[in-house]
Amino acid sequence: MPTAALWDSLWVDLSVATMADAEGYGAIPDAAIGVKDGRIVFVGPRATLPGPMESLAAHVHSGGGGWMTPGLIDCHTHLVYGGNRAREFEMRLEGATYEEIARAGGGIVSTVAATRAAAEDALLAAALPRLESLLADGVTTVEVKSGYGLDTASETRLLRVARRLGQVRPVEVRTTFLGAHALPPEFKGDADGYIDLVCNEMLPAVAEAGLADAVDAFCENIAFSVAQTRRVFETARALGLPVKLHAEQLSNLGGAHLVAEFGGLSADHVEHLDEAGAMAMARAGTVAVLLPGAFYALRETQAPPVELLRRHGVAMALSTDNNPGTSPVCSLLLMLSMGCTFFRLTPAEALAGVTRHAARALGLADRGVIAPGMRADLALWGIDHPAELSYAIGFNPCRAVVNAGVVRAPRVPS
Amino acid sequence: MPTAALWDSLWVDLSVATMADAEGYGAIPDAAIGVKDGRIVFVGPRATLPGPMESLAAHVHSGGGGWMTPGLIDCHTHLVYGGNRAREFEMRLEGATYEEIARAGGGIVSTVAATRAAAEDALLAAALPRLESLLADGVTTVEVKSGYGLDTASETRLLRVARRLGQVRPVEVRTTFLGAHALPPEFKGDADGYIDLVCNEMLPAVAEAGLADAVDAFCENIAFSVAQTRRVFETARALGLPVKLHAEQLSNLGGAHLVAEFGGLSADHVEHLDEAGAMAMARAGTVAVLLPGAFYALRETQAPPVELLRRHGVAMALSTDNNPGTSPVCSLLLMLSMGCTFFRLTPAEALAGVTRHAARALGLADRGVIAPGMRADLALWGIDHPAELSYAIGFNPCRAVVNAGVVRAPRVPS
Ligand SMILES: [Zn+2]
Ligand SMILES: [Zn+2]
Repeated sequence: MPTAALWDSLWVDLSVATMADAEGYGAIPDAAIGVKDGRIVFVGPRATLPGPMESLAAHVHSGGGGWMTPGLIDCHTHLVYGGNRAREFEMRLEGATYEEIARAGGGIVSTVAATRAAAEDALLAAALPRLESLLADGVTTVEVKSGYGLDTASETRLLRVARRLGQVRPVEVRTTFLGAHALPPEFKGDADGYIDLVCNEMLPAVAEAGLADAVDAFCENIAFSVAQTRRVFETARALGLPVKLHAEQLSNLGGAHLVAEFGGLSADHVEHLDEAGAMAMARAGTVAVLLPGAFYALRETQAPPVELLRRHGVAMALSTDNNPGTSPVCSLLLMLSMGCTFFRLTPAEALAGVTRHAARALGLADRGVIAPGMRADLALWGIDHPAELSYAIGFNPCRAVVNAGVVRAPRVPS
Repeated sequence: MPTAALWDSLWVDLSVATMADAEGYGAIPDAAIGVKDGRIVFVGPRATLPGPMESLAAHVHSGGGGWMTPGLIDCHTHLVYGGNRAREFEMRLEGATYEEIARAGGGIVSTVAATRAAAEDALLAAALPRLESLLADGVTTVEVKSGYGLDTASETRLLRVARRLGQVRPVEVRTTFLGAHALPPEFKGDADGYIDLVCNEMLPAVAEAGLADAVDAFCENIAFSVAQTRRVFETARALGLPVKLHAEQLSNLGGAHLVAEFGGLSADHVEHLDEAGAMAMARAGTVAVLLPGAFYALRETQAPPVELLRRHGVAMALSTDNNPGTSPVCSLLLMLSMGCTFFRLTPAEALAGVTRHAARALGLADRGVIAPGMRADLALWGIDHPAELSYAIGFNPCRAVVNAGVVRAPRVPS
């Protein structure tokens, strides 16, 4: 009998973009990756392998001459909701006014109503095709927010569905409680009263059930004020939960300062962020999560201040912001293209935005780069250069995905 | 033995968007479609079927409650070429000037060089993943242009590869000769001399070999003049080939008038089209092919005059313009989203643009709508409303495709 192999598996015949350096791809041509117990144990030039391939690993996989990157991380989604808003989209293009759309039952209240009416299994079934679309793009970790329930029972139901997604599909789900997403109809005119409910009942219930990994809010003139957001953050801190924020999307309210003050994981959107806000984020190590899908769908013209973020060393992540109203985006690869095209990110920045920096935006130190000790979450691409991932539009060259060492095809059978 | 069934197959449990009406979807809820010998022989409410299902068809297919549309038609692509321009895309985002990119071998000349150097099989292999990406979106007919060879041998090679694509994958390919795409380096400063070659040698050779279904040119300040384009069109007419034109993309040279004068199939791009041009197109029945992928990638700000085109009854098609330089787009569904978002098409106009009107842009009267006598080219979608095809971004709900009556999965095994 042969002696037991050192590693579980070994990947060769590939180049690697480790994304482990502060800039660029951390490229290794003619590389090898060793995996054991779901972790990366070796990455480097194939010539530096510590022995003959056969003796090193039980399974040797060929990368077919492609490129291996960290598995992609979608760090900002609202994936679980009832219904969709296609007819509202159509009515707007047919010339309907916002009032007419509201009268026809459109807007976020329509999603809240459909979500509240949906049973847990129905919500799961509705979210699965969207999740599978992301997984086909090489996604191995996805964040999912609540925020369309807006009452304790519905918000916890959404978070339970989010957790179940990670059980029924090969992906790690991180959940974020976003009770302070919008004002539910029954609290019309009483935002403070709703924030009372969020802080006194919803958040404690969610924390008690262990359903949330982080807490988010929507700080905007059309949503909640800085003072209301602060109350949510203080409650989260008391419960030991990290915070993040939908901030400075439509105006500059100072949400970035607030999230930085709380040492938050990320400030998301940030189209209207100013230099003081960027400096505060840099000091706090808060990631800027850029969401070009919403920028596209809303036909915004003010791009986030990428040059400021670069100058102050704020890490930039990229995400789909999958949601039915302002970003029905189900492809993280497409966000690389839009991040480069709309926001003028470089392809290396865009790729770091869905790997290394997306992991930071979720507070995860064990993934997002290919290095020894990291989770073996990997994506293999049939490309000649990693810039192709940002250059191609509506094209998916994903050849294989590895989740904690387990190889799967990019498309998950339903 | 049972008597022979009337039809080969019957589809039920679906709604149908026939796209057969001048406006809207031509929707039929709870519909049925009968297919025989690769043609549609019945479409209508299921309740109007001329007999019990079992007696009507050898095979009864369930649409699973989804929607059936005509198979999608991508009527403007440059799918066959060597190399890609990802590094050029990256250099531009890293701040390189056009001069630096040209010195590094970028621009269209790099694609021409890579294409000329590539053998026929290599060109086929390079085009297949792009084609397969389109097919996954429910595409059943695709137009493919030459235009990166720019000499007789290379241009005919490109058209042969285009024809072969239709033999090795389940799709009908229509070929377009686009010799007058760009000036090859060996004709620098002698555009008229190159047009001589196109008219006297290339076009006759292509026509003789039966390699082209139509003739196209790029009429623009950076390409060929109206006078030069006219010579190409006159040669095409003499050879009995219909014409189309890349027109008014960057400026208003009057290309639309020219293509209308020749009774051309389509004028493509048309961002800078004026009212007189739209009226000329309307009189000639020339289709406007809108290409939002190039608009996006080039970050253009002038959208085509959709309101003018509507007012004058010019049919609008939508296409990927798949090409390595200005539109590396491999998803026709994404063009529905971009056509609505950038150009303010309605979802019904967008869907007509990739079915009914795309067929017209190719001069094909036997497809693009679901009606008796038409080719049974169909796409089945897991959606509740056809507006979802334009609303979703980077999401593919295609469940099955029918090519001339033969059912396939959307994703073609390579
Ligand atoms: Zn969001
Ligand atoms: Zn073109």
